[in-house]
Amino acid sequence: MPILLPDIKELIEERAGKDIVDILVEASPQDVAELISQLPSSEMVYVFNLLPVELAIDVFEELGVDKENEILDGVRKEKKTAILNRMASDDRADLFEGLDEKHKKYYFSIMEKEEAEDVRELLSYPPDTAGGLMTTDYVAVYEWMSVGDAVARLRETAKDVDFVYEVYVLDRKDRPVGIITLKDLVMYNQDEPIGKIMKRSMVKARVDDNQEKVASLFSKYDVTMMPVVDRKRLMKGVITVDDVIDVIEEEGTEDMYHFGAAGNPPENYFSDGILGMARKRMVWLLILVFAGFLSGMVIEHYSSTLHLMLILASFIPVLTGSGGNAGTQAAAVVIRGIAVGDIRIRDIWRVVGREFLIGALVGTGLGCLTALRATLTGGGGLVGLIVGSAMIISVAIATALGGFLPLLFKKLNWDPALMSGPFLTTIMDVISLGIYFEIARRMLRLVG
Amino acid sequence: MPILLPDIKELIEERAGKDIVDILVEASPQDVAELISQLPSSEMVYVFNLLPVELAIDVFEELGVDKENEILDGVRKEKKTAILNRMASDDRADLFEGLDEKHKKYYFSIMEKEEAEDVRELLSYPPDTAGGLMTTDYVAVYEWMSVGDAVARLRETAKDVDFVYEVYVLDRKDRPVGIITLKDLVMYNQDEPIGKIMKRSMVKARVDDNQEKVASLFSKYDVTMMPVVDRKRLMKGVITVDDVIDVIEEEGTEDMYHFGAAGNPPENYFSDGILGMARKRMVWLLILVFAGFLSGMVIEHYSSTLHLMLILASFIPVLTGSGGNAGTQAAAVVIRGIAVGDIRIRDIWRVVGREFLIGALVGTGLGCLTALRATLTGGGGLVGLIVGSAMIISVAIATALGGFLPLLFKKLNWDPALMSGPFLTTIMDVISLGIYFEIARRMLRLVG
Repeated sequence: MPILLPDIKELIEERAGKDIVDILVEASPQDVAELISQLPSSEMVYVFNLLPVELAIDVFEELGVDKENEILDGVRKEKKTAILNRMASDDRADLFEGLDEKHKKYYFSIMEKEEAEDVRELLSYPPDTAGGLMTTDYVAVYEWMSVGDAVARLRETAKDVDFVYEVYVLDRKDRPVGIITLKDLVMYNQDEPIGKIMKRSMVKARVDDNQEKVASLFSKYDVTMMPVVDRKRLMKGVITVDDVIDVIEEEGTEDMYHFGAAGNPPENYFSDGILGMARKRMVWLLILVFAGFLSGMVIEHYSSTLHLMLILASFIPVLTGSGGNAGTQAAAVVIRGIAVGDIRIRDIWRVVGREFLIGALVGTGLGCLTALRATLTGGGGLVGLIVGSAMIISVAIATALGGFLPLLFKKLNWDPALMSGPFLTTIMDVISLGIYFEIARRMLRLVG
Repeated sequence: MPILLPDIKELIEERAGKDIVDILVEASPQDVAELISQLPSSEMVYVFNLLPVELAIDVFEELGVDKENEILDGVRKEKKTAILNRMASDDRADLFEGLDEKHKKYYFSIMEKEEAEDVRELLSYPPDTAGGLMTTDYVAVYEWMSVGDAVARLRETAKDVDFVYEVYVLDRKDRPVGIITLKDLVMYNQDEPIGKIMKRSMVKARVDDNQEKVASLFSKYDVTMMPVVDRKRLMKGVITVDDVIDVIEEEGTEDMYHFGAAGNPPENYFSDGILGMARKRMVWLLILVFAGFLSGMVIEHYSSTLHLMLILASFIPVLTGSGGNAGTQAAAVVIRGIAVGDIRIRDIWRVVGREFLIGALVGTGLGCLTALRATLTGGGGLVGLIVGSAMIISVAIATALGGFLPLLFKKLNWDPALMSGPFLTTIMDVISLGIYFEIARRMLRLVG
């Protein structure tokens, strides 16, 4: 149910606080957050101050860090304290990540000691690791408890935990040894011992696992929560599937940006300024321009041949274009194959072999077509032969390279998606032109 | 815990069934499925037959459709019936989707009537809609029940339902009116009325919503399950977050394939044959080759100019390359911006304006550099001026087009990612060459 911005704006002008609250308590926190984000700062703070504290906390967690800071500066101290103490621990760590020292110090001073300690611990993990993703809000029981004990403990500790689908079973050293789902707690009798009914096999993440690994574990094992342990196998926190969905989308975006030679993605398309965006793109374009100069040098080098056969020059764009396009196709396919786990490093020669064969097939088709056109449009059989054979060789090499380079990058521990289409296109320009003019030189010498 | 294939193969040779089962029952269904998929068909069926029926069903759901069919042909009738009756209803519908008529008829005949009906209903929805994604395995209660009644109903109906985190509250017409989490069922007292404690605001999908819309609802509202309703708002099924993760990954793959002009992705990188893959890629390359011929015609058209200034020809690759690369960057950025919801159709002129400015900035930098090189490497100031100004104009146009075309496609209800890098590169070849030679013609005429 979308809430209409003009309606709310009207109510704000009339200072009809009660009517506003009546509408907003019926909506989801996400919709309320989206709505108030569109208001000017003072109106946003006014509406936020109206919200009952439970809803206020849920809405707060859905805002971006910038809006969160504006609101914290505008609300009364008691509400500030309530939010800081009770919001989800992973969102809170993200908020503190960007604070200046003055704010950080002040917020720590008004928070409960335990909660401040929690923030400090979460901030100690890099944001793109399991430790950086996890929340410390979870429910744990011990293996010697009964179902009844576990339910009692849940009632005690789960009030502020949003995401409770599973309860972790710990041993006496606080290491996770099993899982009980809430379904089990409902289905089994009160006196059943947890240690007997818990599921012992479970997928765990280590605090220093990177977020891509975490995402692929979620995707493979179809789980909605995953416990995170440290080197000593002690339970440190839990990663929830909603954060994993964000990671998967982020990684998809990063791949696409890299593939387009567009650098690293900003938080949001509109969050980078035009100058900053231009600078970031410039870096890659400059590299590609220098590589492009190489193509020019190839033409220069062969300019006496070119002088003789101007008709040959008219096939430069189609030849270099096809090499680049074929390589880009292969790279796109292989990059995503690596990303979703279809292709592993050990498949490298299988992939290169497949790609070379595909390239040879496709190249032969394109080569025949181009040769035919060259022959018919005044070039004669010789030009057709030159253009056609150059096309076949270029496309086959391009496709094999498009398959090989992402896997080489992967093996070197670089992002395979950095092997972008434009980068490959530019490499192929040089190779295609070299092949083309070399074939032309030899054939023209052969016929005298 | 990975299970080692050679160990299992040895045990299979020794026909040590009990030892195999002892190892496999400790592993997750996903790992068992991965392991037996790598065995030859007869050994796979042998191991599968050893598994206790609960684990067998869980493992079966994790196999691909091909392996599932091999196994169904190999197992005894009672196990076949148990699997078909009790496996998750969404996976079962996927299995039936690909069956021949003979198998379909036979399986329907050995299944319980109600389950067969369920398959028929799910098959009636297109696979890429909410109806095609949903499962009919869920737990529902009525608003007039108490927490105690709901728990009793859960114990009765939830045994074969894998994914129970939420229970849906229906009115007397079977329309969902609220949600109770399992956490609520555990936390509240037995005599609390459901209608009073249920959460009334909830996100629903319609059976005919497409899967991209469903994925963006999950991502926005951070939910793990979503009820699906029909036109009359009756409850038809539930979509679970694990299937949504698969959808998000599929969509990311599709975007990347399109962006690379590589057609639609197959189920798996290795699942298409080489010939089929070549044919699919050929379609796009042929279109791009014909577009490439246009570039050749441009060179031909201006060949008297070209004849005079061979040095100009050596800048063709860098000029066309830069236009294509700049356009590809812009397109990559805008396509993902649309995908994650940052950019909407109504932002079109804002985006085109931004992109044009970025392109003009970047183009000026590249133009100055290229002009400098042209001036220094024997071309003189005039060639520098021609090359430099062509670069600025081409890159600015390319970037604006790279931003504009994906949004135009979106508006026309096509996939924005179809505006691929190679396609854009080829359009830009023609435009860049036209700009280049036109500037050259005019300037050369000007100086005499």
